[in-house]
Amino acid sequence: MTATLEQRLDAFRRLDDAKLTFARRDWFPGTSGNLSIKIQNDPLQFAVTASGKDKTKLSPEDYLVVDQDSRPVDETALKPSAETLIHAVVYKTFPKAGACFHVHTVWNNLISELYFGQRAFSIQGQELIKGLGIWEENARITVPIVENFADIPTLATEIEKVITSEVPGVLIRNHGIYTWGGNDFEAKRHLEAFEFLFEYHARWLQLRQAVVSTTTTN
Amino acid sequence: MTATLEQRLDAFRRLDDAKLTFARRDWFPGTSGNLSIKIQNDPLQFAVTASGKDKTKLSPEDYLVVDQDSRPVDETALKPSAETLIHAVVYKTFPKAGACFHVHTVWNNLISELYFGQRAFSIQGQELIKGLGIWEENARITVPIVENFADIPTLATEIEKVITSEVPGVLIRNHGIYTWGGNDFEAKRHLEAFEFLFEYHARWLQLRQAVVSTTTTN
Amino acid sequence: MTATLEQRLDAFRRLDDAKLTFARRDWFPGTSGNLSIKIQNDPLQFAVTASGKDKTKLSPEDYLVVDQDSRPVDETALKPSAETLIHAVVYKTFPKAGACFHVHTVWNNLISELYFGQRAFSIQGQELIKGLGIWEENARITVPIVENFADIPTLATEIEKVITSEVPGVLIRNHGIYTWGGNDFEAKRHLEAFEFLFEYHARWLQLRQAVVSTTTTN
Amino acid sequence: MTATLEQRLDAFRRLDDAKLTFARRDWFPGTSGNLSIKIQNDPLQFAVTASGKDKTKLSPEDYLVVDQDSRPVDETALKPSAETLIHAVVYKTFPKAGACFHVHTVWNNLISELYFGQRAFSIQGQELIKGLGIWEENARITVPIVENFADIPTLATEIEKVITSEVPGVLIRNHGIYTWGGNDFEAKRHLEAFEFLFEYHARWLQLRQAVVSTTTTN
Repeated sequence: MTATLEQRLDAFRRLDDAKLTFARRDWFPGTSGNLSIKIQNDPLQFAVTASGKDKTKLSPEDYLVVDQDSRPVDETALKPSAETLIHAVVYKTFPKAGACFHVHTVWNNLISELYFGQRAFSIQGQELIKGLGIWEENARITVPIVENFADIPTLATEIEKVITSEVPGVLIRNHGIYTWGGNDFEAKRHLEAFEFLFEYHARWLQLRQAVVSTTTTN
Repeated sequence: MTATLEQRLDAFRRLDDAKLTFARRDWFPGTSGNLSIKIQNDPLQFAVTASGKDKTKLSPEDYLVVDQDSRPVDETALKPSAETLIHAVVYKTFPKAGACFHVHTVWNNLISELYFGQRAFSIQGQELIKGLGIWEENARITVPIVENFADIPTLATEIEKVITSEVPGVLIRNHGIYTWGGNDFEAKRHLEAFEFLFEYHARWLQLRQAVVSTTTTN
Repeated sequence: MTATLEQRLDAFRRLDDAKLTFARRDWFPGTSGNLSIKIQNDPLQFAVTASGKDKTKLSPEDYLVVDQDSRPVDETALKPSAETLIHAVVYKTFPKAGACFHVHTVWNNLISELYFGQRAFSIQGQELIKGLGIWEENARITVPIVENFADIPTLATEIEKVITSEVPGVLIRNHGIYTWGGNDFEAKRHLEAFEFLFEYHARWLQLRQAVVSTTTTN
Repeated sequence: MTATLEQRLDAFRRLDDAKLTFARRDWFPGTSGNLSIKIQNDPLQFAVTASGKDKTKLSPEDYLVVDQDSRPVDETALKPSAETLIHAVVYKTFPKAGACFHVHTVWNNLISELYFGQRAFSIQGQELIKGLGIWEENARITVPIVENFADIPTLATEIEKVITSEVPGVLIRNHGIYTWGGNDFEAKRHLEAFEFLFEYHARWLQLRQAVVSTTTTN
């Protein structure tokens, strides 16, 4: 069974909304990034941003619906992004995931490079961790980081190996973050929380060093 | 006596206004933050943002009116934020307070962590201190910082212990700022002044260190 | 002779335009800052932002017309900002000045503090210096910096002593910049050029130190 | 043969679109920057922003059409920017270029100064390099940097010497970037990718130094 027109239009409208919110923050530099919203699990179908479009605009040609193999469900001239495979991996791994967002920011790239050696970024003691849906006291989160393979099937396989239900995101080295949630509202909340934590941590390292260094020097 | 419909609608409209202004600055990452406007003192009733809503949108379901025990005054499916207790503490401590705003920013979190050891952040000699309603020449302000207890009643008690009429705000370690004022206009002015001072000071520490360090090295 | 209604409305409309442009950049934290546009030289009359208003809004009560002694020309409940005196000093010193803008930014405050010891900030070799209307090759500009006297007449006198026709601006220590131009278009261009130069220079000091330090350490 | 009215209006509309998008990001400080869209190759004609206009506004007087010698094609009171010569050099060097954008940002100026000694900035291993239309695995790009000659014909000649088809951009020392593409969509994508890479790299140098330095000190 395929998604109804109503389901598609609803997914497209929600993608519009997320897209424009993120575009205002300049989270799609150079037409990078892609967003998807799941329509159904069985068989898997999800709406996803088309490849190479300017995400600061709205147009009816911005999205398409694809199946579990990232093939368009409808006749269309639009190409799904090659990275659609990664969205499919997320939906197959987490059947409860309802939306998956991928953006590049300077801060997420910085963190992905700084901690690539450990293949993970950890942070603790931040209220914003609750924004990830993690409510334990003094929770510590660990976001996996994978190498940025140019071959997307290889990249998708690597991502499949490291993503866990403990934290709703994965960093690709100098290639942004993928985050997901039960629906678009949750995925957006997760993305904002991650970005806050990345920026906070990078700035903290610099601020702490400035204070330590000044104390030592003077 | 309970608040009239007119008073509520006025409070909701003002909350809308503050909310959208702060949302444009991305001051509610991950649906964090909450805002309240007092409607009456005796008995205490105030309008407050509902828990877990996306604060970049406007909707009739974004706010509710609560009493001194943070219980909804009306039949409603909305849940007040657990942190509503903290707003109540502010209104009980300062009967002249008419609005109370809580936001998370990278800069307020950085300052809250950097000075947590002293349990306070002090700054002097900044024109923006006037934005806090403090007009003495060369005024020095001290903003208290409390530990981020996961248990909100404990957190509220800690906040109650440290807030004073000398400065209209308190930092929670890695959990943003609470600020208040005689009305929403004043609380907004205070919040903007605090955020400016936090960002200024953190950047100053780094800039000063760069200059000292370069001088030493060369 | 007093300004005509048409002249006033034109000045108010232009102030609206500048105000909203700067408000979008958050250049009026905590209701700080003030803007004026000259209406006539003899006797001096200029439109200026009223004291203590939220500059992110438009309202007919945002501006008033004052004379050379900063007194309102019309019956009005509005109070001109105490700092209106400084605008008057600018117009008296430079009869060709047609607009004067004062804003606080983190970057202009940082520069005003870093170079307060020398009472001046100098920069050279930046294309944006042309934005100040200075077209000599490899021009070097020097912006004076004055102490932030709480007493506004004293502050105005200090400013009067240091401003020159060589550069259309003056920094007050931790109290923002005053800049002016032949009209509002020019004053806006000057302000943007100054802010660019301040941010560039502060970031440059940090970037250079990072590179020097890393080279030395490794 | 000269451009048709329809071609001109289309070019002007596209320039409006790019201009407002970049203005929102404050990429035209102090009325700096200029944008062009090619209308035809033979003889060369392109639409370009007029000199000294406020690029945060839309007005019918913002653009004009010029020929290969940067002379206005039509009777007009508008002056093409002196830097129009540089656009002409780009179009003559790369007949497939359809748009050329020049903006000043703090980050592109910082990079242009930091690497001026090498006359080039290189970066590798960044996903955003694909935004430049360069898809090789682990691609390394090198952006040339030229001295900022005040004499525009000299500057244009220098630029002509260093630009190559390997990378669609050139930095001028403390004078921003020129970037181009097959059309305005591509030129915008390139510009955003460059700006991301510049900011990323400058922040990376500082973050790496903070980590190295803290490790060394502690």
